[in-house]
Parts: sequence; structure tokens; C-alpha cells
Amino acid sequence: MTIKITGNNQYLKELNKATVLDLIRQNKRLSRKELADLTGLSPTACGSITRELIKDGFLHETGQGESTGGRKPVMLELKPNSYYAVGFDIGMSELKMVIADITAKVLVQKQFEYSPGISVEKVIKFIGEKFFEVISNEKLSVDKFIGSGLSIPGILDRRTNKIIIAPNLAWNEVDLGTEISEALGMPAYIENEAMCSAICEHWIGKCSNIENFICINIESGIGAGIFIGESIYRGYSGSAGEIGHLIVKENGRLCGCGNRGCLETYASIRHMLREINERVQKGYSSDIINPGMGTLSWDKIVEAAYKGDELCLQVLKKGAIYTGYAVAFLINTLNPEAIVLGKCFKEYAPLVMDTLIKTVNENALKYPVSKVKIFTSEFGMNSSALGAAMIPIRKIFRK
Amino acid sequence: MTIKITGNNQYLKELNKATVLDLIRQNKRLSRKELADLTGLSPTACGSITRELIKDGFLHETGQGESTGGRKPVMLELKPNSYYAVGFDIGMSELKMVIADITAKVLVQKQFEYSPGISVEKVIKFIGEKFFEVISNEKLSVDKFIGSGLSIPGILDRRTNKIIIAPNLAWNEVDLGTEISEALGMPAYIENEAMCSAICEHWIGKCSNIENFICINIESGIGAGIFIGESIYRGYSGSAGEIGHLIVKENGRLCGCGNRGCLETYASIRHMLREINERVQKGYSSDIINPGMGTLSWDKIVEAAYKGDELCLQVLKKGAIYTGYAVAFLINTLNPEAIVLGKCFKEYAPLVMDTLIKTVNENALKYPVSKVKIFTSEFGMNSSALGAAMIPIRKIFRK
Repeated sequence: MTIKITGNNQYLKELNKATVLDLIRQNKRLSRKELADLTGLSPTACGSITRELIKDGFLHETGQGESTGGRKPVMLELKPNSYYAVGFDIGMSELKMVIADITAKVLVQKQFEYSPGISVEKVIKFIGEKFFEVISNEKLSVDKFIGSGLSIPGILDRRTNKIIIAPNLAWNEVDLGTEISEALGMPAYIENEAMCSAICEHWIGKCSNIENFICINIESGIGAGIFIGESIYRGYSGSAGEIGHLIVKENGRLCGCGNRGCLETYASIRHMLREINERVQKGYSSDIINPGMGTLSWDKIVEAAYKGDELCLQVLKKGAIYTGYAVAFLINTLNPEAIVLGKCFKEYAPLVMDTLIKTVNENALKYPVSKVKIFTSEFGMNSSALGAAMIPIRKIFRK
Repeated sequence: MTIKITGNNQYLKELNKATVLDLIRQNKRLSRKELADLTGLSPTACGSITRELIKDGFLHETGQGESTGGRKPVMLELKPNSYYAVGFDIGMSELKMVIADITAKVLVQKQFEYSPGISVEKVIKFIGEKFFEVISNEKLSVDKFIGSGLSIPGILDRRTNKIIIAPNLAWNEVDLGTEISEALGMPAYIENEAMCSAICEHWIGKCSNIENFICINIESGIGAGIFIGESIYRGYSGSAGEIGHLIVKENGRLCGCGNRGCLETYASIRHMLREINERVQKGYSSDIINPGMGTLSWDKIVEAAYKGDELCLQVLKKGAIYTGYAVAFLINTLNPEAIVLGKCFKEYAPLVMDTLIKTVNENALKYPVSKVKIFTSEFGMNSSALGAAMIPIRKIFRK
């Protein structure tokens, strides 16, 4: 029986192009013969597809490969600096911007401050201004941008593509994607910030070959980006990953969500910062910190912890224990291959990783915990902006 | 461009057969014309496939449908009582058996007791004996069985297809599938019991059109079966769904896992039963229960709770509150469309559902909780055996 698929040819062609590009991306370089073998496409079809991809600037020829008998084959690679994508991480008082090319090489990584409580209109204007300023300085043409990605600290609705709520920005029901798309003149994709970090880990980080993993971001709040079957898992209405409100202590500290004892109230940067400053103001003093120093910044606290300050270490370790409870439950429930701890966690990971791992080992079941890898993200605070930039890039390779 | 797929024709044929069967299953009855329209297959191909499926006994013609202009079309349906599957739920002291036909109609639903601590060898023998006894009584031919499913209260390894550990049976590293397959002379599929319940909810229950849901089984222990994207989610090594060991109380009750304060120690039947009996033995007494009644059975406790006994109600409600914590966290983390509460929960659901829902509403974030449906399974204690029987049946429709 021969099945002829003659229907939607344009779609199939795009699919084949994406398959060819992804094979070259994953193998770094391939000959036309290797491509034909890997795809099952005929040499003619393969030749036609690669010809178009070269003409359009996605691929280029890069000298000769190893001979397997006959002539040395010409090798194909993704063409660097041909097309770009831009990613923005919209924080409470800061915009991070990343520009990368389709090979995922990062060309620009910048950040710009604004006042907390900035309005949607002002952020749109700010993004437009900074983007065109940067590409002008870098001598990049806007025509070469395939799209933009926006990392949002909030809950998105996948069907309307709107921001439902972004508490730290005090935004509700915002259609930011459409607005940014118009402002920049290119497609704009919005994504939750922890999901962006997970995309970053999957596309350019340590999780590139991992099907099921969870990326936990520890910063002002705590959220997770979940990958299942090599795809972003968003849940039924797009809000999956909100792990910060696991109750880790009955009748514990009051949380912004109205509840008591949420993970965030013990393990987020905001609450650890607050706890330490409150204790110092109440008279805690050591060789390293004391009430005379005024309100301590997060950087100061991390520095003090590295110098061995007992209070700072104790609070960071307590945060790691409570985070460990959540990690253990995620391991029991989802049996992931990896857990990545990201954002601020990188800054103090060497001080608390032992505590966290010990807690996880004590609290998760032996079997799934024996199968999981737990590690710190190498990207720190930049993972969401990097992941946002990768959103349009991934789309070239995944139809 | 025309792509010819001429490679693995047998596979494609099987795939097309499964597609045809599944369309008929979902639509109850279809004409050949409707099938051709829905599949995109040519009338000739469609005719050939349905002819084979009728010949092999999977489909039959069932009179005429509505005319859409011309002659009234002959309708096709799944053929009842043509092929069967058997499911076994292997409990601590009881074997449940379900026989269903490919239309998912249940023909036999039985249970047989054995002594706790039964060995693997004895269970295999027991299953074989009971199976052949039942099909002989029911006058069913073993040749008409397409396979068997085994619901196991434990952790399975998907790669080796072995039982890693089944604590309540005290089994480790058992290759039960192979043994049962030999004993019954048909394929045997092993699956975790909560996963079996989730399969039951998805194939014949209220979750048949739900992509992402979690089925929580409350019985001796507490476990969950997770569906993501209409497929069973097993995780990296097959143990996903072990939610019973969420720490709901710091330094709480000692759990069998070695930890303290696990959900199971407050909300599982075993622990609720133990708590009530301990309190009664220490002198608790009401109009309904008192120390003179000796050790109370679970049924007696449920009965007492319905009669309004304060202690029984209090313990069941406390269990529902702690279950609510876990449900809230699952809602925040996985943003499912539905949560089904199954097994013993059905017996006392009317007494505690309000408490559970209230806890979930207080502890989950507003947005995902506004999207989720929470309900009690209609299958009670039978869901795992039913789900186990559906495993071979599903495989006909899903290549």
C-alpha cells in the first residue's frame, strides 16, 4: 500500500526544512548525503531543500568533510549572524535584553533600569527605544530579526495570549505580545519567566538532551518551568509551575497570596532578605554585620554568608531546607530526570547545596531520588532573557 | 511536491486500522463515507480496511444510518463480545478480576481473597486458576482474549518492565508480566495501581475528554495517576505519582517511609483507621462507638461517621484537609483540568468534600483553581481492576 500525501504541500515543505535545520543544528555539520540518510528524503528533495535554505541564508557550506570512499563531501552548517532574535526579561525595575543569532550565539546582553511600578505603555515605549538604540549601535538590521520573546513574571492565558496577572508589575489582563509586535515590527511571543529559564536550559544549557526536567527559579518569588517529553508543560490554562505556594509550615508566615507558611515566605530572596534585616535591626551583630550598617542589600548578605556570618548562613540554609521539601515532592510526583536551580540560587549555591541535597534525600522516595540529577543553573539571573530570545529561534527548528 | 511513504507498509496499515477503530469508538457508529471523510483515506482504502476489520471480528454492520441525499448508508460499529481483555488488581489480601470486551462493556467483575504476605509464585498460580475457572464458567474462549493488565501497588521500571518494589506485598524486583503472560497464554501488561485508575477514568469515566488530569487514590496508602496530553505520565523512570509522602506537618507522625509528617500518615485509610481505634482504646466513647466494641473496622468507622460520630468525622475531615493541601499544590504546579478522588474516598466523600474543596480554595492560587474540576470517582474500589482490563483494549485503538 502506498499512501500519497498530496494535500498540504507547503506545510510538508516547511516541516522538511525544519527537520533538515534541526538535524544540522544537533549534529553541528552534515553533508547532503548524511542529511538524505537521516531524513529518508530523496537526494533530489534534499538538494532542493538545502539549496533554498542556503539561498535564504539559514545554511552555508563550510569546506569538506571526511570521505567515506568517494569524493570528500561538502559540509553544511547553520549560518552565523544571518538572522537574529531578541529576548526581553521584564523585571520589577529592570529590563534585560539579549540578542542572539539562529546558532544561539549571544551577541548582545544588556540591562536597563526603570522605576518600579512602571505602566504597560511605558514599558512598551521603553522596549522599543532600547531595542532600536541597541541594534543601531550594533549595526544590525531590523529586517534580519525573525522575532522577539518576552519573559513575564506572571500568569499567562495561552488561549488569549494575554497576561492574566503579573503581581510584581501590578499588571492585569494585558495583551503585551500584540503591542510589542507592533512596536518592533516582528512577531512577539510572551512566556512566563520560569518557563523562559527552562527553555534556556533546554536549548543552550545542561538540559539539552533531557526530556523531563524542572527548572526552579529562586528570586523575589519562587516559580518553576516544567519540561515534559521535551516540550514546555503549561497545563490546562497556562499557569503550571507555580510551586512557590506549597505550604511548608502549618500556620507559618503570612504570604502575599493571603495564605500562611508558603515556601516563598521562607526561601525566596525577598523574604530571606527581610528576615535577616529584621533580625539585624533587632540587635543581631557579628564580626561581619551589625545594626550600624543600616539596611543590608542582598549582595551584602550573600557576601556576609560567604565570610561565615552565622545569621545569614542560617537563613540561607533554612531556605534551602524548605526548597528541598518542594524538590522532594516534585521528585516523588513527577519523577523527573533533572532539577535545575536557577536565578539567584547560583549566587549562594556553594553554601547551601549540601543542605538542600540532604533534605531531598531525606524527604523523597529512594527510587525516584536515585534517578534524578540536581544541579545549579550556569546562567544565573540571565536565564529568562536568554530563554526569551530562544523562543523565536526554536520555532525555526520545530514546526 | 508529493511525498510517497512506501517504507513500512505493515505499520501504516496497522496505524490506519487503529485510526478507523478509534473513530468508530468515539463516534459510536459511522458509515464508510464518514470514515473516508474523517480519515482522509480513499474510499477504496477505507473499504479494504473496514472489510478486514469486519472479517477479523472487530467491527460489524448495524443497519442503515441517515441519508444525506442518496441511499441510506450502512453503519459500522464496534462488535460486542468479539474479543476480551482481563484486568487484575493485586491487593494485599485480595485479587480483583474484571473481564471486558473491546467495546469496554464489563462482563465479569469478581474478587477472591488470599492471605496477606502471599508470594509471587502463589499469586501467579492463583491468577491462572481463577482466570481459567471464570472463563470456563462464563463459556469464554481464551483464544478470544487480546491480553491482560495487572494493577500493582508499587513502583515499576518501564525499561525492564519489572516491579521494583511493592511494599504492601513485600515484593522486590519481580518480572510479573512475563510470568503472567506465560500462565495465561496472552500478552500481559503491568501498571501501577493509581495509573490503572487514571486509565479507567480516561477510558470509561468522567475524564474521557480531558487531556491533563490527576487521579488520586485514597486507600491503604495514597498515590496518583497523572495524565498529560491524553497519555499516562510515568516520568523518567516510571515512578511518577507518588504523592503520599508530601510533608504536610513538620516533625509530624512517623511514616513507613522513615520520614515524619507525610500526607499518608494523616489521610490514608490505614492511618485514619489506626488513629480512631487508638482514641477509642484510650477511652473515647459516644452514642455510636465505644471501647466495648473492640477494634473497629473501616466499614464500621464510615458508618459511625455517617451517623454523626464526632471522632470519626473529625479524623476524616482532618484527612480531607491534608489531602486538600496536596491537591492545592498539584493544582498550582500542574494546572490540571480535573482532579478525581478515587478508591475509598467515594465511601465518605459526601461527609468531607466541602472541607476538601474549602481547603483547596484557600491554599491554591485563584487562577488555576478557577479552572479545575474536582470530583469523586464513580468507580470506587474497582477502578484499578477496570483500568487494568482497559490496557490491552486501549492498545487496539492507539498504535
